[in-house]
Amino acid sequence: MQFNEIVEKLKQGQSGVVDFKVKNNSIILSASSLEKAKESEISFLDNDSPLNLKNIIKTSKASALLLPADDNYIVEIANRLSINWVLLKYPKIAFAETLEFLYPYEIEKEGIHKSAVLGKNVKIAPRVSIGANAYIGDNTEIGAETIIHPGVVVYQNVIIGVKNIIHANSVIHSGSKLGDKCVINANAVIGGEGFGFVPTSNGWKKMPQVGRVILKNKVEIGSGSTVDRPSVGETIIGEDTKIDNLVQIGHGVETGQGCAMAAQVGIAGGAQIGNAVILAGQVGVSNKVKIGDRVIASSKSGITSNVEADKIVSGFPAMPNKLWLRCSANFKKLPEIAKAIREINRRNSR
Amino acid sequence: MQFNEIVEKLKQGQSGVVDFKVKNNSIILSASSLEKAKESEISFLDNDSPLNLKNIIKTSKASALLLPADDNYIVEIANRLSINWVLLKYPKIAFAETLEFLYPYEIEKEGIHKSAVLGKNVKIAPRVSIGANAYIGDNTEIGAETIIHPGVVVYQNVIIGVKNIIHANSVIHSGSKLGDKCVINANAVIGGEGFGFVPTSNGWKKMPQVGRVILKNKVEIGSGSTVDRPSVGETIIGEDTKIDNLVQIGHGVETGQGCAMAAQVGIAGGAQIGNAVILAGQVGVSNKVKIGDRVIASSKSGITSNVEADKIVSGFPAMPNKLWLRCSANFKKLPEIAKAIREINRRNSR
Amino acid sequence: MQFNEIVEKLKQGQSGVVDFKVKNNSIILSASSLEKAKESEISFLDNDSPLNLKNIIKTSKASALLLPADDNYIVEIANRLSINWVLLKYPKIAFAETLEFLYPYEIEKEGIHKSAVLGKNVKIAPRVSIGANAYIGDNTEIGAETIIHPGVVVYQNVIIGVKNIIHANSVIHSGSKLGDKCVINANAVIGGEGFGFVPTSNGWKKMPQVGRVILKNKVEIGSGSTVDRPSVGETIIGEDTKIDNLVQIGHGVETGQGCAMAAQVGIAGGAQIGNAVILAGQVGVSNKVKIGDRVIASSKSGITSNVEADKIVSGFPAMPNKLWLRCSANFKKLPEIAKAIREINRRNSR
Repeated sequence: MQFNEIVEKLKQGQSGVVDFKVKNNSIILSASSLEKAKESEISFLDNDSPLNLKNIIKTSKASALLLPADDNYIVEIANRLSINWVLLKYPKIAFAETLEFLYPYEIEKEGIHKSAVLGKNVKIAPRVSIGANAYIGDNTEIGAETIIHPGVVVYQNVIIGVKNIIHANSVIHSGSKLGDKCVINANAVIGGEGFGFVPTSNGWKKMPQVGRVILKNKVEIGSGSTVDRPSVGETIIGEDTKIDNLVQIGHGVETGQGCAMAAQVGIAGGAQIGNAVILAGQVGVSNKVKIGDRVIASSKSGITSNVEADKIVSGFPAMPNKLWLRCSANFKKLPEIAKAIREINRRNSR
Repeated sequence: MQFNEIVEKLKQGQSGVVDFKVKNNSIILSASSLEKAKESEISFLDNDSPLNLKNIIKTSKASALLLPADDNYIVEIANRLSINWVLLKYPKIAFAETLEFLYPYEIEKEGIHKSAVLGKNVKIAPRVSIGANAYIGDNTEIGAETIIHPGVVVYQNVIIGVKNIIHANSVIHSGSKLGDKCVINANAVIGGEGFGFVPTSNGWKKMPQVGRVILKNKVEIGSGSTVDRPSVGETIIGEDTKIDNLVQIGHGVETGQGCAMAAQVGIAGGAQIGNAVILAGQVGVSNKVKIGDRVIASSKSGITSNVEADKIVSGFPAMPNKLWLRCSANFKKLPEIAKAIREINRRNSR
Repeated sequence: MQFNEIVEKLKQGQSGVVDFKVKNNSIILSASSLEKAKESEISFLDNDSPLNLKNIIKTSKASALLLPADDNYIVEIANRLSINWVLLKYPKIAFAETLEFLYPYEIEKEGIHKSAVLGKNVKIAPRVSIGANAYIGDNTEIGAETIIHPGVVVYQNVIIGVKNIIHANSVIHSGSKLGDKCVINANAVIGGEGFGFVPTSNGWKKMPQVGRVILKNKVEIGSGSTVDRPSVGETIIGEDTKIDNLVQIGHGVETGQGCAMAAQVGIAGGAQIGNAVILAGQVGVSNKVKIGDRVIASSKSGITSNVEADKIVSGFPAMPNKLWLRCSANFKKLPEIAKAIREINRRNSR
């Protein structure tokens, strides 16, 4: 694709083209990071990048660059570069859009592979793809243009909306309901039974888990992640919430819209997560905790009690991020602190 | 099911019916939480619930309630309610039993799906169900009434007892032995090779893992969890031990009876866990550590050395829970503590 | 196998036979741990074992022992034992080799199971085994003697080298490249899409993930682990790097040779890991962090900034191990420290 074609397409997108220079209108064959870009490649610099990254654009071998328009330092450098560039309000969005132009998503073959097994009374909308050795249980409905990759197992009575992508060997349990445009990555498990056992004098009594999981539109679930169904009621993942790999969502959890949860997060049963909450890697949330809108929890933090909206929390038990930073800094000084006290006491006892 | 039928059935169960009132003998169609219950639904209040939850029963729209008999406050309220109720010794057990009455487990079709693949010399007892595209390796034995869901892979020489439920796409490696009434949830891996590599001058030398995994009766393994086999000998999960999702059990671990391990727990090789041990979410246990009976470890704790029976531990490295609570409270005061020392020293140096 | 045969075979291996005694040339049928060994079994004692383990050899019921030659205490005991023994430079390597002799790896049937599904233009080298219900996508190449177990899904355009073992129900995404002699354990996911979303006023904009994953020779990936592909470029796992179960490797991570990562480690996007790095269980590494060669991180540590070669780090945020040990010891004294300060201040205020 020629550089000027990319510019024309970006103008119709959401990245905010401010200016551009067609130096030699190179043919752009692929995309790469700034550090590794070669000729015929396009790369980008994000807003607010560190100086050492900014300076790479002086020597980058890329044939075209997507650059932040709000950075005078960058704009000056760009004006001296003899390559193609675009100045943008949101260069990272421009890069995402460019990847879409350059690497169109591989179209799956429509239709149901002959090795797939379908139960009774399965309803399949037009332009659905069901891969080899997939299994679809009785009474399940699959919306138009949904792609089910090989080896997927969908139990009974599941409702799957339109334009979902369900990757290989993932499992969707009975009663689950997926909205539209969700992505379920490989080996994820949606709607497995919640972990509920009541102690009795004869050992554990299993609490039947007869609830279900609902994923709203545009939810994405990472590879190997698990979203459990509750004993009664519903586990709900809100619209546009994105969940990374190996994340555990306990029974009866509800999340709001637009959350992001990084890998290996664990959310215990019944927790209620607001909108636009961001949980970094390996964060834990205790059961029934309520987390307000736009809360951010840094990596490895453990949230054991309610958190108000707009807070940034860290540590275990989680506390305000700024407090935690100061506490952690002082944690490293604990040997000195203990020594100081010993000295004070020695001096005082003389 | 009418309310009085539920009462009659509960009388035959383990929940300890103390008293009940049939107000209008409603038909109970489903079950729900106290907060969300609607007409024709049954709900419950657990023993020792917080006051705000207790008060919900005054306004609950449920048609029937299962309530704790040992709580005078509740009993008084119940006597004024114009709905059906039961007073019980163990209302949570009553709720579990009621869910069993109201939602009978969906019966799988008996028999072997024609797309399942069986190796040589496989022994299958009566009333076994083997789902679509499952694979059963040579010389494997499957006990009566066991249900194997679609896509499950069982390697060679596996022994599976009676009345097991093995969910979709889980994997059971060669030599594993499952007792009776176990549940293996979706995408779990039983008997994968332990992580054993010996450093040599030529890189890692792999320690062959020729041991096996034994799950005793009534063991449950969560979705995506992994239980490794050891180089020699056995990894053993004790009877009635329940393991949640995404848990790692290392090679050669032995657990006692009736343990519960929450999601994302990791137990390193050779650890020995007693009976009735409870490990909360994201707990780690170091290799070869011994944990006594009835130990409880709170979430995210890391157990790096032996723990005696009946202890409650927290933190990393794990310490007595009460000590950890005081240390954590003081951790938050570290900036103040450091400041206090600076001031003392300033004052003393004058 | 007779004991003297084992000795002859060990002499040709890498374990460094120093001395041996054929007492009664027992037939060795199996291998076991020192504690559990019975007659006809062989066991070993590692270099630098603790004294209580050393003393077990006095009473072990094993018929043959592999012992460290560099330990005079052991050598003396051995000379008094009336069983077969070998003194070795590396008894653990000897034990690994002995397990290979005693338990030859079960040979899979060559050939492609009739229930496996192959796409177009798949190239399969000689002596490949493809199990039941496996799926191989278009244009994929599989090298000689590679074993693909039942239920594995390989997407399109994947290149798999020779002598790989790919366990049941694992998934390998488009574009991935595996070297030779890799092991992919059950339910692992190689090349899933990286977690990349750009915030916009309309919610999350997905960054297309068009890069790929490369596993070099002799890489092993644990059960349920996930290795993500990046938006552009490559995620690379270096030669002979071993990864345990339920580990998350983010998009664009590069690791050097000979690393070992224990279960439930999580490495965020773009981190660069040197050679021979060892990460213990549940360690987290932040995105874009650089870790030098031979770094060791103890369990549960969280590495949030670059670490120089040869360092041992612990804690969160990670710090030098020795410092962390002292800080942790003092953490337990925080209540006393706080009390001491209160007393000093009380005394001073009098």
